[in-house]
Amino acid sequence: MDRRRFLAAGGLAAVSPALAQPGVAKVAPGEDPALFQTVNFYSDGVDYTPAEYAQRLQALAATGALQADNYSLGGAVQALEKTFADALGKPAAMFVPTGTLANHLAVRTLAGADRRVLVQAESHLYNDSGDGAGLLSGLSLVPLGLGGTGMALDEVRSWVERSAGGRVPNRVGVLSIESPVRRRDHAFVPYAELQALCAYARGQGIRLHLDGARLFSLPLHSGHSVREYAALFDTVYVSTWKHFDGASGAILAGEAEVIDGLYHQRRLFGGGLPHAWPLMALAEASVAGFEADYARAWQAAEQVIALLSADARFSMRRIANGTSRFYLRVQGVALPAFVAAAQARSVLLPGAPAGADEMAMQVNLSLLRSPPALVARKLLDAASA
Amino acid sequence: MDRRRFLAAGGLAAVSPALAQPGVAKVAPGEDPALFQTVNFYSDGVDYTPAEYAQRLQALAATGALQADNYSLGGAVQALEKTFADALGKPAAMFVPTGTLANHLAVRTLAGADRRVLVQAESHLYNDSGDGAGLLSGLSLVPLGLGGTGMALDEVRSWVERSAGGRVPNRVGVLSIESPVRRRDHAFVPYAELQALCAYARGQGIRLHLDGARLFSLPLHSGHSVREYAALFDTVYVSTWKHFDGASGAILAGEAEVIDGLYHQRRLFGGGLPHAWPLMALAEASVAGFEADYARAWQAAEQVIALLSADARFSMRRIANGTSRFYLRVQGVALPAFVAAAQARSVLLPGAPAGADEMAMQVNLSLLRSPPALVARKLLDAASA
Amino acid sequence: MDRRRFLAAGGLAAVSPALAQPGVAKVAPGEDPALFQTVNFYSDGVDYTPAEYAQRLQALAATGALQADNYSLGGAVQALEKTFADALGKPAAMFVPTGTLANHLAVRTLAGADRRVLVQAESHLYNDSGDGAGLLSGLSLVPLGLGGTGMALDEVRSWVERSAGGRVPNRVGVLSIESPVRRRDHAFVPYAELQALCAYARGQGIRLHLDGARLFSLPLHSGHSVREYAALFDTVYVSTWKHFDGASGAILAGEAEVIDGLYHQRRLFGGGLPHAWPLMALAEASVAGFEADYARAWQAAEQVIALLSADARFSMRRIANGTSRFYLRVQGVALPAFVAAAQARSVLLPGAPAGADEMAMQVNLSLLRSPPALVARKLLDAASA
Amino acid sequence: MDRRRFLAAGGLAAVSPALAQPGVAKVAPGEDPALFQTVNFYSDGVDYTPAEYAQRLQALAATGALQADNYSLGGAVQALEKTFADALGKPAAMFVPTGTLANHLAVRTLAGADRRVLVQAESHLYNDSGDGAGLLSGLSLVPLGLGGTGMALDEVRSWVERSAGGRVPNRVGVLSIESPVRRRDHAFVPYAELQALCAYARGQGIRLHLDGARLFSLPLHSGHSVREYAALFDTVYVSTWKHFDGASGAILAGEAEVIDGLYHQRRLFGGGLPHAWPLMALAEASVAGFEADYARAWQAAEQVIALLSADARFSMRRIANGTSRFYLRVQGVALPAFVAAAQARSVLLPGAPAGADEMAMQVNLSLLRSPPALVARKLLDAASA
Repeated sequence: MDRRRFLAAGGLAAVSPALAQPGVAKVAPGEDPALFQTVNFYSDGVDYTPAEYAQRLQALAATGALQADNYSLGGAVQALEKTFADALGKPAAMFVPTGTLANHLAVRTLAGADRRVLVQAESHLYNDSGDGAGLLSGLSLVPLGLGGTGMALDEVRSWVERSAGGRVPNRVGVLSIESPVRRRDHAFVPYAELQALCAYARGQGIRLHLDGARLFSLPLHSGHSVREYAALFDTVYVSTWKHFDGASGAILAGEAEVIDGLYHQRRLFGGGLPHAWPLMALAEASVAGFEADYARAWQAAEQVIALLSADARFSMRRIANGTSRFYLRVQGVALPAFVAAAQARSVLLPGAPAGADEMAMQVNLSLLRSPPALVARKLLDAASA
Repeated sequence: MDRRRFLAAGGLAAVSPALAQPGVAKVAPGEDPALFQTVNFYSDGVDYTPAEYAQRLQALAATGALQADNYSLGGAVQALEKTFADALGKPAAMFVPTGTLANHLAVRTLAGADRRVLVQAESHLYNDSGDGAGLLSGLSLVPLGLGGTGMALDEVRSWVERSAGGRVPNRVGVLSIESPVRRRDHAFVPYAELQALCAYARGQGIRLHLDGARLFSLPLHSGHSVREYAALFDTVYVSTWKHFDGASGAILAGEAEVIDGLYHQRRLFGGGLPHAWPLMALAEASVAGFEADYARAWQAAEQVIALLSADARFSMRRIANGTSRFYLRVQGVALPAFVAAAQARSVLLPGAPAGADEMAMQVNLSLLRSPPALVARKLLDAASA
Repeated sequence: MDRRRFLAAGGLAAVSPALAQPGVAKVAPGEDPALFQTVNFYSDGVDYTPAEYAQRLQALAATGALQADNYSLGGAVQALEKTFADALGKPAAMFVPTGTLANHLAVRTLAGADRRVLVQAESHLYNDSGDGAGLLSGLSLVPLGLGGTGMALDEVRSWVERSAGGRVPNRVGVLSIESPVRRRDHAFVPYAELQALCAYARGQGIRLHLDGARLFSLPLHSGHSVREYAALFDTVYVSTWKHFDGASGAILAGEAEVIDGLYHQRRLFGGGLPHAWPLMALAEASVAGFEADYARAWQAAEQVIALLSADARFSMRRIANGTSRFYLRVQGVALPAFVAAAQARSVLLPGAPAGADEMAMQVNLSLLRSPPALVARKLLDAASA
Repeated sequence: MDRRRFLAAGGLAAVSPALAQPGVAKVAPGEDPALFQTVNFYSDGVDYTPAEYAQRLQALAATGALQADNYSLGGAVQALEKTFADALGKPAAMFVPTGTLANHLAVRTLAGADRRVLVQAESHLYNDSGDGAGLLSGLSLVPLGLGGTGMALDEVRSWVERSAGGRVPNRVGVLSIESPVRRRDHAFVPYAELQALCAYARGQGIRLHLDGARLFSLPLHSGHSVREYAALFDTVYVSTWKHFDGASGAILAGEAEVIDGLYHQRRLFGGGLPHAWPLMALAEASVAGFEADYARAWQAAEQVIALLSADARFSMRRIANGTSRFYLRVQGVALPAFVAAAQARSVLLPGAPAGADEMAMQVNLSLLRSPPALVARKLLDAASA
């Protein structure tokens, strides 16, 4: 099989019409159909087992289509960078082994001499990066929008102005926005709000970074394309494993003048993997078809929800401006037992804290592996087990 | 005159009873009484002219009491460090050329491996230090209490907890509090609030720094001594020139284990002045008597206010939890002309933005240079000029 | 096949006696023997093609023995860490995605408050890490032993003393030594020299780091075990891909007090891969047998050399204190044509700069894939082609 | 007396011809001639006592010529900046409280994105600044010319090339040269060597900084003017107290694009003194006449040397490429007793380590306070006491 066919098999614009139907696991030529059966409701992606991932990697490599990179340059890395740059409508893109490093390199580079960076108080960059932007790069992150998803334009304006007014100006160099926001149940910042924030910031000479780790789930829910989002910002980070089929990794896309040569910085941070391809070679095939696949996954999820809702023990709660998450309430059933019974039926649930009766359910492409009616049936059985 | 007498002449526990009366300029033996006459309402201190300052320095040096320091060690520097350590009830103190550096060295040292520092959003450290704590020391300052004077205990607790909960913990190492707060009209944080904040922070293992640039004005207004304030914190910074007679400089006081050897850091920041004494040798004499002098300055100010208030054009507004500032409203008079007329009478006023009818008046020890009735008379004359 | 057998198949303490003979490719059950045939003389390791690597990964995963890690914690990562800690005789070890980051984290952590780090002028840390230890961690690297392999004890002593004698002491916190040294044709620093350097440094309270990226090739050439080397140092970095079967990655081993919790720093540098196992899961199987395999590879190389040397066109040059490298001189033959002809016979040569007649040949485990006589025959044929 | 006359009195282009003769203390109108009598051989300057310094400051302030600065901007600071910019032939200059900070700001600013800085191994920047350029600014200083005064062009070239050749280029951004070199007995780097080094560096796009703390002593010994030296470099630091009459402080001069706005950095390092004038106001008067004064001081020194050399107990050793230092050997006399006896005669000597018979003598402007014959007589008396 040539490379083009293999890549196509990874998306739902697939080799056989059957693959486009939820409930038929997408297995590429050479893959073992006994794998790829488990459905999960806790992850951003299909969450491959090692056996699944390694078999898929082996099948791709066996085609001869997979070129090794050399210190994260060339080969499969370059191909993925081009794929994402095109998808995002940016001239250049660089692979980075983690989103933590992608965000850090972006704000560090965009900031230049203006060291304040406005971020959401609930963002990954502010909460889950060990304050590395401060500790290693001397940036001062200012947390805005405490407890919320976005940030108000007035709040941004106020901080831009107060930062310029100290005895030594502490100018704001970057506005960094995460959307969807993981710590806010993956809710997104409305496009019009982003437009207003970015327009104001551009007018002030402030550079713009989008932490779009899960950007590709936005179009379905917001009606705006990934290119529309990317166009608002100087740089965009997208995870290559959360929604896509990488094992780790991130893409940082932007203008050539920002991205070119940035691999030196990647290396000095210790992120220049000698061979990155085993982590990311599968991602490329999953990009083109993702949006359609994700829409089908939500169709499947809605069918499961509808079937469950007919049973009085189940009810569903949606998230305002939500994307991949909904909450499933299960009453009259001991949740841990229910989770265990579902797992025995190859449906993996997130569980919930002790005493809670609601689970934070993620919709992802593993839902395409099994017919919705079968998934619902397994869950109803599990609830009665 | 021996050193003891000269130093005494600097405070109001003075050589002659006359010096203890407001309205008689404090002139040490050998000083020219034609100087030291101007009264100002805009500064934290008497704001010496070069001629005044240099004459006072010359008079002190002529006593032979003034020992030069060597790279900010020994001599007058050591003497001042001891005076402040004693006044604050701390085992050790170090002279630093600016408050900016004193605050920076304090939080940098106290933070250790826990790099988040909670500060007031309205503090000098957050607004007027060029974000140097982030840029040079990699600390992450978190601005709390936006728009207010102190910070709520609940807000502090929330940030301590959220900072410990990221994927990489971003632990809070230091709580730094400024009081009085310059950007809040020199209002102070009530002692009970400080007690509660510090007790909570200590329980969490968080170190405590007090930016007490103007700490010595607190006892009169709050009823708590400088030692009581200092005892709540690990380190305390006090300006040696705002309230005292230095030209520049700061004291950082604390436990010996924090302060000893810290002069190496002072030097690596470029703050190890080869000879610091011309900047700070006058400060020592002004420490012991400051609190009594400042109380008398406020007595004088109250007299001035009372005399002015009998005139319908003048009214006064106090600050909640205020210290050295009050607002003077002047109506029916063109403010710029009034300021100029007062200046011609050796009373210097702060002025106000165009269109405003209120001036932010500072009470300081220059008020002791002239009888209150005379000051009031000059202002009334100026208003009618 | 159970995990134990698979791992055993990776080393030459192998499932069948035949595997212990040079010239029989080591193929684990389930692997395709058509792969794994190419011999190379340019790499530290066998330099798998993607097809070879992916097949081996798939075969391991199919055993069910491969546990995924979670953000580089647990699973295959933990297993590898334990394997290396045991092999090195250190209580703890941490996987890091690159050697650049392993060295950086080591010296950063060991340095503590003493920020000078003595390194070889020819070391990887000094030349090929983008000065990240300075730029990101504020360390001052001092390059010693310019142009040489080790560093003289007198030179070290001189720098320790001069660093303590500035107006602000710039104390030396760490002595970092690379051995073998890549930029010195992989020559090693003699054990007695290391002993003397480390004994002196320990006496001065200086911490010790070994950049032993290729440490496991040392015992054959120096007569000292990896544990003897590791015992001299506080921390040791070993590459998990240069000699071993990882695709990228490094181990940093040391005392528990240095290593425990260090994964927070790995993450803040952006090195906490969400799933590291595709990069390193193959390495574990290659550790136990490496030293014996490497000795056999050199036996094979010596046979090849002897057979070539019988032809007047070939001669060999050894490196003083050398490890995996020798130089092969080829006279009377156009080198580029010879390299191409060898490649056509599945023997990959390093080539040489234009005009040179000497190639820097690496001895590695790919030599075990083909009988030495066959390799020599192919090279002789290529020279005559 | 107007300001012009006072300033003139500070230099030897003085109010009375008598002032131009060595042996008549330069006393400005209003100063007490009983002061200013001591001669020293250990300092770069006259090393004022506090009484001398304060009286001179008071005399200047009494003229009304001294304008206070405001946070190191304007007034006497601005006047001094202009004086030095003119003297050095640079468009702009900034006062900084210490030479440590002046050097640091210079290399930090000039480096830009190229973080390696070549320095002399024996320089102040490398030895006596606490490695602050690394710790606070992430620069990597490379020590060249170990044990020598300058650095060889070949060594510089070799480091520029090797720094560009790592896997991540560590480009050299700045070449910083100190001359005269304090740790080398104040020897200077020959002008032709500087020319060659600077020409090479410029050709490589490397920026150039001169640590000319004692630059103004160079013309007498090297035959090249301060402007000639300054013209070779982008930035020049000159101490305002070593040779001149400040108490502390430094000037950093350079192109407007480097210096303008740099006061923000001065402040963020904690170097923005609220009032700097007491430290530096006296320096301005000492600039214009320094070179002539220094030449006369050496004339006086030569007379003292000649008179001493007639006594067999004394001999003198010069420094190759020396400036302000010579060595005086005293034999047949107990050195500590000799030093004490000289001090009793108002001639201060540097002394020497126990067992040494040679003193490192500094020639400075205090030699102009007393006739050379008198100084020699006092020393001969002291040797016989």
